[in-house]
Amino acid sequence: MARERLVVIGGDAAGMSAAAQARRRRGAEELEIVAVERGRHTSYSACGIPYWIGGLVSDVDSMVARTPTVFAADHAIEVRIETEAVGLDLDRAEVTVRAGAAESRLGYDHLMLGLGAVPTRPDLPGVGAPGVYGVQTLDDGEAVRAAVDAGAGTAVVVGGGYVGLELAEALVRRGLGVTVVDAAEEIMSTVDADLGALVRAAMAGMGIDVRVGEALVGIETGADGRARRVVTAAGGYDVDLVVLGLGVRPNTALAAGAGIDTGHRGAIRTDQRMRTVSHGNVWAAGDCVESFHRVLRQPVHMPLGTHANKQGRVAGINLGGGYATFPGVVGTAVTKVCQLEVARTGLGTREADRAGFRYVAATVESTTRAGYYPGAGPITVKLLAEERSGRVLGAQIIGREGAAKRIDVLATALWNEMTAEELTGLDLSYAPPFAPVWDPVLIAARKAADLLGR
Amino acid sequence: MARERLVVIGGDAAGMSAAAQARRRRGAEELEIVAVERGRHTSYSACGIPYWIGGLVSDVDSMVARTPTVFAADHAIEVRIETEAVGLDLDRAEVTVRAGAAESRLGYDHLMLGLGAVPTRPDLPGVGAPGVYGVQTLDDGEAVRAAVDAGAGTAVVVGGGYVGLELAEALVRRGLGVTVVDAAEEIMSTVDADLGALVRAAMAGMGIDVRVGEALVGIETGADGRARRVVTAAGGYDVDLVVLGLGVRPNTALAAGAGIDTGHRGAIRTDQRMRTVSHGNVWAAGDCVESFHRVLRQPVHMPLGTHANKQGRVAGINLGGGYATFPGVVGTAVTKVCQLEVARTGLGTREADRAGFRYVAATVESTTRAGYYPGAGPITVKLLAEERSGRVLGAQIIGREGAAKRIDVLATALWNEMTAEELTGLDLSYAPPFAPVWDPVLIAARKAADLLGR
Repeated sequence: MARERLVVIGGDAAGMSAAAQARRRRGAEELEIVAVERGRHTSYSACGIPYWIGGLVSDVDSMVARTPTVFAADHAIEVRIETEAVGLDLDRAEVTVRAGAAESRLGYDHLMLGLGAVPTRPDLPGVGAPGVYGVQTLDDGEAVRAAVDAGAGTAVVVGGGYVGLELAEALVRRGLGVTVVDAAEEIMSTVDADLGALVRAAMAGMGIDVRVGEALVGIETGADGRARRVVTAAGGYDVDLVVLGLGVRPNTALAAGAGIDTGHRGAIRTDQRMRTVSHGNVWAAGDCVESFHRVLRQPVHMPLGTHANKQGRVAGINLGGGYATFPGVVGTAVTKVCQLEVARTGLGTREADRAGFRYVAATVESTTRAGYYPGAGPITVKLLAEERSGRVLGAQIIGREGAAKRIDVLATALWNEMTAEELTGLDLSYAPPFAPVWDPVLIAARKAADLLGR
Repeated sequence: MARERLVVIGGDAAGMSAAAQARRRRGAEELEIVAVERGRHTSYSACGIPYWIGGLVSDVDSMVARTPTVFAADHAIEVRIETEAVGLDLDRAEVTVRAGAAESRLGYDHLMLGLGAVPTRPDLPGVGAPGVYGVQTLDDGEAVRAAVDAGAGTAVVVGGGYVGLELAEALVRRGLGVTVVDAAEEIMSTVDADLGALVRAAMAGMGIDVRVGEALVGIETGADGRARRVVTAAGGYDVDLVVLGLGVRPNTALAAGAGIDTGHRGAIRTDQRMRTVSHGNVWAAGDCVESFHRVLRQPVHMPLGTHANKQGRVAGINLGGGYATFPGVVGTAVTKVCQLEVARTGLGTREADRAGFRYVAATVESTTRAGYYPGAGPITVKLLAEERSGRVLGAQIIGREGAAKRIDVLATALWNEMTAEELTGLDLSYAPPFAPVWDPVLIAARKAADLLGR
């Protein structure tokens, strides 16, 4: 059998997990693996960037799981950094790559797309100016950190999603004056507005100026061409630094242009084995693909590192001749903002409404430990359950240390399509340092079941 | 309809949850409720006793959910404290109660048994002497705390189960020299010996002298008749205070003597509605009953406050004319010993062996947060999965802050009879302050699935 070549576009979690798994199953004599990465880093934790900018993490290398050197030495995987895929010809099975000024063509037998996502940049004046950062890659993070190190004193974060809020906190830690502007009526739209308001209060308590209901109008630049003032529908803010936290979209222009089939929000459509539905020798994973949402029963775009790792692994096993499937997502996410832990899984009220569910919503307040045990902090649990079936549709948790990881119980419950009533019986762990005798999850389930009349 | 009377024996979680639920459904004009409690407290958190003795909890009242006064005023429930049930005549439907020297009879239409458990006291010389404490009730706890306050300098804890270890730590916090003696080869038999060894090391690090493989021979008393020296097969220890941590047995002598049907370890047999199988108007819940183990598919005695609360609630709903069932347990438990969090669910290797399962055991080490995030601590997860079906049989976790509550994911997985392979796909929450990108639970599941060859 002739030696085949796997080309991987994208050197982060999805692409490199796939490459590593393929290598485990097929040796270098059988499969050549070449990965191209437009940035300078491979296999890093993008989720760690805010903590690095904020100074909680001091060593950038600690966020890199494997360097190109390690891939070459330990896995016989060639990684070409600062090399961008600029063309894709599916008929000829060729990728055009550019490194500096040099372009070349790279033929493949198998193609793995780990294209990632790119920050949403609204089409408004000045959004493309220097000094406006979209923080998606480690290179982006290095640019923001450099700007802070260079003495930036004020910053505006546009968008109050979890990345924006994590970055706002990081910049406050570094001593900047920070304003967050969000066009929506409440920040943190990944949770319902009643919980988002709690996050906003915590941010205000940390000295962050949070403006909701303020749409971005544009960014004015100074004589040097750099961003100097953020203009919103309600006013303006002089800044040294602008961070875009308006979410991301799949980085699929190249793939879609070449004819790869895309779906929700332009994400690449794959089967459960992470093979593109349109091309049998092209695989894709991570922030550039659709994932099947097990509660909505439809594909969604849900760009998170945990899915990228799982999907990349699945693609790599299949590329290596094994068999694996990615079973989908239930919409779990967690973050920590200003000492508040915020988590969600399944559907929030907006999503449940949009999907046409009829449901009850139960919100309860309790404590993270037994009330009398030192360190017991507040926790709020909100649970949505479908009226007809009683099954749990989603959950949200906000609270202090120890609150958020409880979302995993609810994610597991959703995975198994449990009803609120069944949840109330769960044998969850109890001891005073860990929970009240009725865990807050059980209390919320009880209230939801009561609202359902069960 | 004539007014009926519910007599509740036992004023703690099981009995009083039942009383409160029955009252919610049937008013005082319809149902008289009288509860008798041999101690001085109602509805308290026995699990909090070690922390109170150790000084982490200063206010004993904070551990009492509801006092007799509150039951009388808010729930029209009469509680007679320091009143012991000493006789039970099921044919006449009468309980004989003793308060001080006075005995009286109390007829009932419905009887609720919340008898609790009593510490195991081996039949050895001196075990019944003053200065030897079995810590099961709040009154027991007060006695130990009083002994410490009175200047006890040295203590031996007999038995290295979780209650014994929590008490050992509490006594060290109060400045006592503490020795733990355990007849078994390793302490903390609720987890496997490899994890128990980690607990033992942590205890040694806190200055606790832990002796394993040392069976108790007897306790010698001084001239005053109080315990002065604990004698084991390997030596002896001079003491001011002896605490028995040898587990508990159901406090069912009265009930069994009267003809109530009992099963595993003498625990009362009930149906799913918490009605005794032998007597239609007698209900029971909490530490005195059997619970159905959903993994073993058989009844077990598992005395824990969380079950007592759930079962008492179920009994009370049914007593009040409603319908509720207790769906069983999966063997979840958690504790914190010397900064180490220890949790388990399902079966350990001993239990799995005894039940005749063939299984694989996967143990992995990881971190509680992303490795680069401040406060990331070690966590060990051990997972047992059945060879034939691949389903998870049990799990154990040991680690630092944030480790143990992950057991609830595995308890929920057991509840739903998930396989190790299916576990690997779970959409668990990830962000650097909470987990590595592959949560330790997923890593363990992956390893178990690999061992199973799936």
